[in-house]
Order: sequence, then C-alpha cells, then structure tokens
Amino acid sequence: MEQQWSVGIVLFDDVEVLDFAGPFEVLSVTAHPDQHASTQDMKPFIVKTISETGHMVHARNGLKVQPDYSFSNAPQFDILVIPGGLGAREREVHNNELIQWITDRMQSVQLMTSVCTGALLLAKAGLLDGKHATTHWASYERLQNEFPNVIVQKNVKFVDEGTIITSGGISAGINMAFHIVKRLLGAEVAQMTAKRMEYDIDISLV
Amino acid sequence: MEQQWSVGIVLFDDVEVLDFAGPFEVLSVTAHPDQHASTQDMKPFIVKTISETGHMVHARNGLKVQPDYSFSNAPQFDILVIPGGLGAREREVHNNELIQWITDRMQSVQLMTSVCTGALLLAKAGLLDGKHATTHWASYERLQNEFPNVIVQKNVKFVDEGTIITSGGISAGINMAFHIVKRLLGAEVAQMTAKRMEYDIDISLV
Repeated sequence: MEQQWSVGIVLFDDVEVLDFAGPFEVLSVTAHPDQHASTQDMKPFIVKTISETGHMVHARNGLKVQPDYSFSNAPQFDILVIPGGLGAREREVHNNELIQWITDRMQSVQLMTSVCTGALLLAKAGLLDGKHATTHWASYERLQNEFPNVIVQKNVKFVDEGTIITSGGISAGINMAFHIVKRLLGAEVAQMTAKRMEYDIDISLV
Repeated sequence: MEQQWSVGIVLFDDVEVLDFAGPFEVLSVTAHPDQHASTQDMKPFIVKTISETGHMVHARNGLKVQPDYSFSNAPQFDILVIPGGLGAREREVHNNELIQWITDRMQSVQLMTSVCTGALLLAKAGLLDGKHATTHWASYERLQNEFPNVIVQKNVKFVDEGTIITSGGISAGINMAFHIVKRLLGAEVAQMTAKRMEYDIDISLV
C-alpha cells in the first residue's frame, strides 16, 4: 500500500482563484509512477476544500465554489493549504475564528502551507515567528511591518521551514505544490505530474 | 471608455480544474495600465461561467463549482473558453446539446477558444475542419483519427486561427490566455498581468 496524504484547502470569500486552484490541480493529478492517473483511491494526495461555515464561497472575480467541509465537520488533514487574495488580506486576517482554527490545526498536520497573502494568516496565528517566510511581492512590506518577528524572504517562489512552507504570489503556489510532490515522492513523480499538466518547470529548482 | 470583453467559460462534470481556472485567473486579473486591479467595472475582461443546466458542476477530482448561467439564460459573450478533461473526452463529446450550443455560439462570438481536450468539442462541432489545431499531447492521435479534416499541431502551447484558438494540455490554457491578452491589449498589459500573478512567462513567445 502506497502512502497517501489528505490535503485540505481553506476557502473564503474573495480567495484568489489560482491561489487554491493551482495547488489543487498539481496535488490532485499527481499519481504514483506505476498507477494510472485516474485510479482515485490509490492517489498520493486526496484534496478537499473547507470553509468556516461550509457555505458557498464567492472567490475573487466571482467564481462560486462549494466547499466540502466546514470548520466544524472537517476531518483530520495531513497537509493544509491556506491561500490568499483580497479576502485574506482585508477580512480573514481579522477573523479570530479562522486564525484560531489554523492555530489549532497546526498541532495535527504534518505540513502547514500558505500561498500568496495566506502568509498573513499564518503570521497572525503566530506560526511564522522567528521563521523565514514569503508572500506576494506587493505584501512584503506589510508582512514585515505587521509581524516584525517574521524573517521575510523576497524574490523566492517558496520558503520551506520544515513543517511550514510559505509561497509567493498567486502562481507561486504551483511551484510550491511541485516542491511538496518532489519532497514527499521524489523528482520523478514531480516531473511526471508536470508532463501531465504540460507545465514548463525545472523540477531541479523546486 | 476602454474596451471591454465578456468572457464565458463552459463547465461540465469532470472538467479539469486548471483548464478553466488558469484562463479565469489570467483574464480576470488583467487590468488596463492606468487602472487599479480591483476596479471591477472597468476591467478589460468580465469572466462568467456557464453549464448546460446551470446546476452545480463536479469538476475533476471533486471541486464543486456553481456556474453563473445555464445554456438557456446565458447572455451574449465576446469570447468563449471551452475547457477539457475527462468529462470532455468521455461524455461531452457525445453530448449533442452542448455541441449544438457551441455551434450556435460560434455565430455570435468574436473568439472561440479551447483548452486541452476541449478541442475535441470544437472538432465535433465542425469548427476545426481544414484548420490547424492542438490539444493535450495524450489526445493528438484521437483528435487526428476521429477528425481527419483537422490539421493537428503537436508540441505547441496554442494555435491561433483568427476567430478560433486551441491550446495544449491543462496549463497551456494559461499560455493561451496570455496570448489573448497580448493580442487584444498589447504586450505591456500582458506583462503586467504576469507580474501580478508572479507567473514566469516570456510574453514575446505568447
């Protein structure tokens, strides 16, 4: 039996679409080398979506997504992805319920990750204190100013701090997802995923 | 008043997520050079989603998306994006309602486009006869065998035939969307969109 990771992606109103859809795609199309891509139950990553209430989310620019779970009925996840966008930086960073949920979940996940301004949510939860982290280039200053204990890394696609990985803006979540595939399953599997997606990426750099 | 294009993205069960989310992101974050990205009503592209019934779509790997419109209440669109995926190649290519809708809409759009195996749907509608077109690399043979009047182009990100543009697999829809931005608004705007998305792409090649 091959190893399998459950992945939860947190959604909220005005979440940036590619912030969550990029990692969703990379992780869900990943397959073990000897398996057909559509063998759902044996896939390395089973990806689900969660929001605070479980109600329909109005993502940025109007895409309407129905989460699989609410905070109250979400199962255990091995990997959590916290995306960013207007909703993260204007509302969710002030949402104590969501920040507390992230804080609590940190105790049970193998890997906590953020995309784009999702880093502000991890920082607010205190998870990035004393750690290197990155975010969208337009929010470097805000991350540094509001959370002076974070060591902000500029001009990188992602920063791997072991149990926490933060990534840069929007499409950098795709790079981070390839890094996760490579770290957990090796370069060959990551390369195969890139080929399936026709995605030009140098796997040696992720 | 700057020019504005209405974009419709067609969804169906088992549509590949990045097939639609990639073009959705690129086109919706595009802004005119003198405008802030969040000035919704003056954006160059207003992107909406449509499905045959308008009911919730279960995209590939379980993402649940609520379309904005059904075929019966969808407004006029300037640009249509037909994504691909398992649902396109196994079911929708045999769905006469959808193929007829695409055929009808060809009369009123400025630009008909496909991503990945969405090309099979355009081919079935007869729109690619005598034209160069591309699709996901794993479906080159099928496109050629089932639609011998299509001139299949391999190993390209997209093929621009004027009013019809087809693109390669999954992430190639992102390249095609950047091409659309560049063709309609110029390289500077396309470059600005890439920067906002932190997306590494050579705009001279799209």
